[in-house]
Amino acid sequence: MQDKVTLIEVAPRDGFQSVIEPIATTDKLAIIKALAAAGLKHIEVGSFVSPKAIAQMADIVPVLQGVERLADDFESIVLVPNQQGAQMATEHRCQRLNFVFSASETHNLNNVNKTLQQSLEELKRVQQVVDKKEGLALRVSLATSFDCPFTGAVNPEHTLALFQQILNICPSAQLALCDTTGRAHPFAVRDLFTRALALMDEPERLIFHCHDTYGLAIANVAAAYQAGVRTFDTAVAGFGGCPFAPGASGNVATEDVVYFFESGGIDTGIDSKKLKQAIALAEQIEGAQLGGSIRLLNR
Amino acid sequence: MQDKVTLIEVAPRDGFQSVIEPIATTDKLAIIKALAAAGLKHIEVGSFVSPKAIAQMADIVPVLQGVERLADDFESIVLVPNQQGAQMATEHRCQRLNFVFSASETHNLNNVNKTLQQSLEELKRVQQVVDKKEGLALRVSLATSFDCPFTGAVNPEHTLALFQQILNICPSAQLALCDTTGRAHPFAVRDLFTRALALMDEPERLIFHCHDTYGLAIANVAAAYQAGVRTFDTAVAGFGGCPFAPGASGNVATEDVVYFFESGGIDTGIDSKKLKQAIALAEQIEGAQLGGSIRLLNR
Repeated sequence: MQDKVTLIEVAPRDGFQSVIEPIATTDKLAIIKALAAAGLKHIEVGSFVSPKAIAQMADIVPVLQGVERLADDFESIVLVPNQQGAQMATEHRCQRLNFVFSASETHNLNNVNKTLQQSLEELKRVQQVVDKKEGLALRVSLATSFDCPFTGAVNPEHTLALFQQILNICPSAQLALCDTTGRAHPFAVRDLFTRALALMDEPERLIFHCHDTYGLAIANVAAAYQAGVRTFDTAVAGFGGCPFAPGASGNVATEDVVYFFESGGIDTGIDSKKLKQAIALAEQIEGAQLGGSIRLLNR
Repeated sequence: MQDKVTLIEVAPRDGFQSVIEPIATTDKLAIIKALAAAGLKHIEVGSFVSPKAIAQMADIVPVLQGVERLADDFESIVLVPNQQGAQMATEHRCQRLNFVFSASETHNLNNVNKTLQQSLEELKRVQQVVDKKEGLALRVSLATSFDCPFTGAVNPEHTLALFQQILNICPSAQLALCDTTGRAHPFAVRDLFTRALALMDEPERLIFHCHDTYGLAIANVAAAYQAGVRTFDTAVAGFGGCPFAPGASGNVATEDVVYFFESGGIDTGIDSKKLKQAIALAEQIEGAQLGGSIRLLNR
């Protein structure tokens, strides 16, 4: 039987939020629909955060309404930073919440103004919200699992201890280890995922989220795959570049990951030709920071 | 003891020859000297080919003269396509010849107008030229070792059989397996190098030459390293992009490979800060097709 991987598309959240200019809701929906048409069945479509913090995500409700009529097996994922966001999400139709906090306490304080202990307590409350709503699932994303922009390399023992605490709080959630800075090294990626997988009953619930800032993303995807990871966050057209490093890549490009796996004989379920339509739409977004390699060959 | 790798800089040959506009010899020498100052001790500085075929390489003699006064342990490498080129090279000061032919017979006929058997016979004559000149060493580069632009994937059994024939003809030469198209997959790279290394007494003579056209170069370098390869061809600023695919990357970028290894705790002997000077010079070359990731972060 051919080996398979699952891609989770994150451009509409992690990519779009890096764009300062407002993107029209219709443009967002056109890209999401093109992605779904290419076979991406799991898409993070936005977040329930304060519009004061991230104005780009202010249209999450019309975006969720716009994807309601996509295929039955389509999963729309929304990021929630806290219980309040989770509660708001339950009032709309979405299939999974993505609760994010950081392995680095310094980054977590800076990003969500919470200690790690406070974030773990918040996670318990988010899990309670999810438990009360039928058909709603949870994912937890542990940012800076490898490296922190403020404090540098994160001790893998520390990350694994947090990983175990998260597993204890939400035993059926998906769990993503995120290379937020793009500085994780393939050796570290392979080692951490090998150890994380040893702690899980269901390896399919483990996700690798990575950025291509230092050109290591595909090498890191290969390393995670080698360790046994089969689910990966990706962003069409490498959406999500860093505004303060022009030309630097953002999230690993969906089409690059598709090419990497498919050319290695591993099924992604994605139609590369149809994906070009989503890439073309992404390239039209004003102020988008794009990346990736395969996209440039299609010109 | 810390693990070490050796990088061979190929931009002055494989990179420059992709530029249509003539590059001034003084500009070439300035880049080569900046590369040597950054710690690159093995540089392919050009080739003895017909100026009718590749006009950009017509100044190989003044280039070789220009690098004569570099450090005692500096190795200048020149590509030679045949016995005649090898003979010409012996009249000048250089330390190593690089004889290139293709694993794919179709590509070899297209590129050097020879069958594989004819190229192996030519290799014997080149080896004889090298044997007659004291202080001159040989390297053989097997292009399209993984994939051919005309015929697609190359059977690894075929490549390994050729590899063994080359070893028999020149038992002390360096030997490079080249991913000419950039389409080699990390799984194939790891497998082929594992098998090639099993055929060699001295693994340090084995080289991986790769291109980043499909964004797989660093993943492929990681795979080759994992197999045991410790010597890599790289090109500063990812010099050598494909003229018919604007934006597509050429040779794997020296600075990306340096970053990959050094951030993984492996010594390259390269001074990244000094390398920036060579990158800046490369960026000034008119018509250069550049690539890589780290370069863009330095802006």
